[in-house]
Amino acid sequence: MGFDRLIEKICEKQNPTVVGLDPALDLIPVFLKERYYKEYGETLLGAAEVVLEFNKRLIDALCGIVPAVKPQLAFYEALGYEGMRVFYDTVKYAKEEGLYVIADAKRGDIGSTASAYANAFLGVTRVGASEHSPFPVDALTVNAYLGSDGVMPFINACEVHDKGVFVLVKTSNPSSGELQDRKIDDMPVYMHMGDMLQKWGESVMGKYGYTGVGAVVGATYPEQIKSVRERFPSIFFLIPGYGAQGGTAKDLFAAFDKRGLGGLVNSSRGIMAAYQKEKCDEKDFAGAAYREAVRMKDDLLSVIGEIGL
Amino acid sequence: MGFDRLIEKICEKQNPTVVGLDPALDLIPVFLKERYYKEYGETLLGAAEVVLEFNKRLIDALCGIVPAVKPQLAFYEALGYEGMRVFYDTVKYAKEEGLYVIADAKRGDIGSTASAYANAFLGVTRVGASEHSPFPVDALTVNAYLGSDGVMPFINACEVHDKGVFVLVKTSNPSSGELQDRKIDDMPVYMHMGDMLQKWGESVMGKYGYTGVGAVVGATYPEQIKSVRERFPSIFFLIPGYGAQGGTAKDLFAAFDKRGLGGLVNSSRGIMAAYQKEKCDEKDFAGAAYREAVRMKDDLLSVIGEIGL
Repeated sequence: MGFDRLIEKICEKQNPTVVGLDPALDLIPVFLKERYYKEYGETLLGAAEVVLEFNKRLIDALCGIVPAVKPQLAFYEALGYEGMRVFYDTVKYAKEEGLYVIADAKRGDIGSTASAYANAFLGVTRVGASEHSPFPVDALTVNAYLGSDGVMPFINACEVHDKGVFVLVKTSNPSSGELQDRKIDDMPVYMHMGDMLQKWGESVMGKYGYTGVGAVVGATYPEQIKSVRERFPSIFFLIPGYGAQGGTAKDLFAAFDKRGLGGLVNSSRGIMAAYQKEKCDEKDFAGAAYREAVRMKDDLLSVIGEIGL
Repeated sequence: MGFDRLIEKICEKQNPTVVGLDPALDLIPVFLKERYYKEYGETLLGAAEVVLEFNKRLIDALCGIVPAVKPQLAFYEALGYEGMRVFYDTVKYAKEEGLYVIADAKRGDIGSTASAYANAFLGVTRVGASEHSPFPVDALTVNAYLGSDGVMPFINACEVHDKGVFVLVKTSNPSSGELQDRKIDDMPVYMHMGDMLQKWGESVMGKYGYTGVGAVVGATYPEQIKSVRERFPSIFFLIPGYGAQGGTAKDLFAAFDKRGLGGLVNSSRGIMAAYQKEKCDEKDFAGAAYREAVRMKDDLLSVIGEIGL
């Protein structure tokens, strides 16, 4: 229940890193793209196939060292329905390699529509007497601007299927404060959002002290990480903004408890496109990703210390 | 620019209705499902194919009387990548029949991710030297909890490709007030959201006085429709909540200007599943949808009056 399965993987790997699989085409090595475009043409199908190959090689290189991956739906939708097919294939492959998979989709809607999204990612769709899992991930990011109606169907699915959600609380982008930092009754919007999360999480408490309703809190806002953590000791954090966006390991120290638990730190292009920064042979892109993942793990552990239940 | 193309279609049809294409399987006639499940099995493929047939028959019946359709992404994602393929096919079919197509996806993310979503629905994805439109709709619903960073990429795509967005302002669901009605500096959150929309819309002003950055405002909250309209005369409204959710034509009168313009009223299951309410032969489901669309048009025009530029 809750994020127990994720937490156990984090402990096993001694690594609170999640690798964002955000396959923008300009992050993919040219030699791979040439190969697939030659076979399929410069089509969405060709692009989708090269994305799948890229993802698989990254997963192969990284599955021994990281506990989780987080495919970002936007980059699959940008390749049309072929992109959605390779999103499915990526999820399946990652799970076969033992990874916890978070779909970064920031979905949110009301009533039967939210239930349909919940079925798509966390539950099952019933067709006649058969049940199918359309995109069988372990957790999903959710946008709760619509209030409880927009979130409860996801949480119900979490209860039934042992899944999790991460709700946007304080996002890592520069303009996140335009709404999220505004004060309602002397407390910022993101903190009110945290209050709602806390309530929503009550029915999905896990055995390690964290509920299955996590919060997205950006590494670019260390003060807010600290204050949200102080108010909500039982909310697990998904933390974007490390590395490329400017957040450091020190900035997100406050997210973690004494056991080294409480947060999962995302790096997307920092790891995926490490070969571009390293300026190595692009054919060694998976090796470069692995080296950057090791560096990031060491960086995080140097601040958090050993992780143990 | 802006919603000019939509507005012209509304005038031509004398009808400010958009039909939600939210094909939950329990809304689809049994005879159709039996036929497709027999051919494809009780699979996501079988479900997707029956959804496409259902949508096409509805579009055929409705394209002479309504200006627009609004497929809700959740119901396509709930059928996996086969569902996304028939979403694409539905969009293509609806556009061939002359309809304005709004993807109800409530997307929202930051930076390059928001750009990828914008490419997916409103723009183009570049693969090598080729450009492709993954899901070529006319407008998209957007959730702006993340602030300007999450919205500008969509608006840039609107400028370049003559498309529109509808941003969530005051949604129709019972719990929408949990965040949206809370007061910041004595003004509700949804009104602050409106202020942001107004600013975002400046670069995409259309020739009929409305910008290309519309607002989702629920028919279930007539007082809020009125106050949002008073403050923002140039924001076009997408209005869910008519019919099934309880909103009446009278409730949304304030959304419209003297020309009968300014709003597009959604009905999803009210029209799609009219045959269930009418208790007619389910084989006449498209006929029942047409009759309900006529009733709704008459109901709206009885309050709004003639629509003219």
